[in-house]
Amino acid sequence: MPGRGGDERTETQPSSRNKRAEIVAVATEYFGDNGYEDTKWADVAAAVGLGPTALYHYFESKQQCLFEILVEAVEDARAEFLRSGQGEFAAVFPAVVRRSFERSDREARRARVLVAEQGLVRHPRRAPREEDARLRAFALLKEYEAGWRDLLAAGMEEGAIPAVDPDLLSRAVIGTYNSVWRWYRPDGRLGLDEVADFFVPRLLALAGLPE
Amino acid sequence: MPGRGGDERTETQPSSRNKRAEIVAVATEYFGDNGYEDTKWADVAAAVGLGPTALYHYFESKQQCLFEILVEAVEDARAEFLRSGQGEFAAVFPAVVRRSFERSDREARRARVLVAEQGLVRHPRRAPREEDARLRAFALLKEYEAGWRDLLAAGMEEGAIPAVDPDLLSRAVIGTYNSVWRWYRPDGRLGLDEVADFFVPRLLALAGLPE
Repeated sequence: MPGRGGDERTETQPSSRNKRAEIVAVATEYFGDNGYEDTKWADVAAAVGLGPTALYHYFESKQQCLFEILVEAVEDARAEFLRSGQGEFAAVFPAVVRRSFERSDREARRARVLVAEQGLVRHPRRAPREEDARLRAFALLKEYEAGWRDLLAAGMEEGAIPAVDPDLLSRAVIGTYNSVWRWYRPDGRLGLDEVADFFVPRLLALAGLPE
Repeated sequence: MPGRGGDERTETQPSSRNKRAEIVAVATEYFGDNGYEDTKWADVAAAVGLGPTALYHYFESKQQCLFEILVEAVEDARAEFLRSGQGEFAAVFPAVVRRSFERSDREARRARVLVAEQGLVRHPRRAPREEDARLRAFALLKEYEAGWRDLLAAGMEEGAIPAVDPDLLSRAVIGTYNSVWRWYRPDGRLGLDEVADFFVPRLLALAGLPE
């Protein structure tokens, strides 16, 4: 997706934004298909027709690019979460859960990369742009997890679901949800609707929402 | 844990086996604490007092060592699974699930590494010993997943749990279970008993076992 501005990124010219988006798309595909570690940054450069110096203008490194992918993925998830609006837990929570399975093939691949590589946000980097991207990804992930925890805690306060440790419950919900992206493939045997039909009611049950 | 023999590994002299075990223990600790990618193989060598040539005798590379750690972790899990014995699903499944949370601090750290890095088993390696270890880890992981799937399918056949897609159900159970190791720390706020008390009944409910 095109860059969202901010002086950290490129000048906001359409061709720069498009090029950045192209790099992100190719990197996401390669990281998803081959794994982040086995993807050669040089192959990404070649695929978008950029030499190392030109590529450096957009991303200092493969790792910075990964962190930026994570930032965008989590920003989108957060925005979707916030769009579910206010209201009773028993209405809001199922809507949020259902919506979290509405993913295009590209978004599913990006979710795969996020789930596979999110552990990398925990470890400080030396290179400044990498470290800046890592910190943003790390902070956003924490906010994302807190969002689920706060929603579940609100449900408990409402009496909509049994009161349990909200840390444990949010980890269980997020953990079960995230695990789907490790194996789900857009070209696989099961369509995402089928997967959602299976997981959504079970995630609601996990939270303790009566059927 | 000490090497289990087989010509792939070192001569079966106690000091070799102990050294190999020491390398595995240090590597597991570093991979768990710093992440596999950020761990320098040279630091592992230094910590066990071996130069690169001597270390190469045990492990061709950091990656081969990781795959061997995965092999041992999954072999232990499989052995534990098989020890749960035959019998009615309603007795066997809860026992297996409960036992899967009985982990020493070292085993918890190893599980963390397994869950964080298991994606790496999907991608072929060039170096022969690495590739051999990868294939073993990959095959064992497939067997491990099949074990859960077969157990759940047997439960469905018994009528002990509702019949659903056993692939989806085993993925849900394994995914929820595995997610614990991403965040659980032996020195964290929550003890493993507390974590088990939360997750075990929810895993049973996920499978559809009546309370």
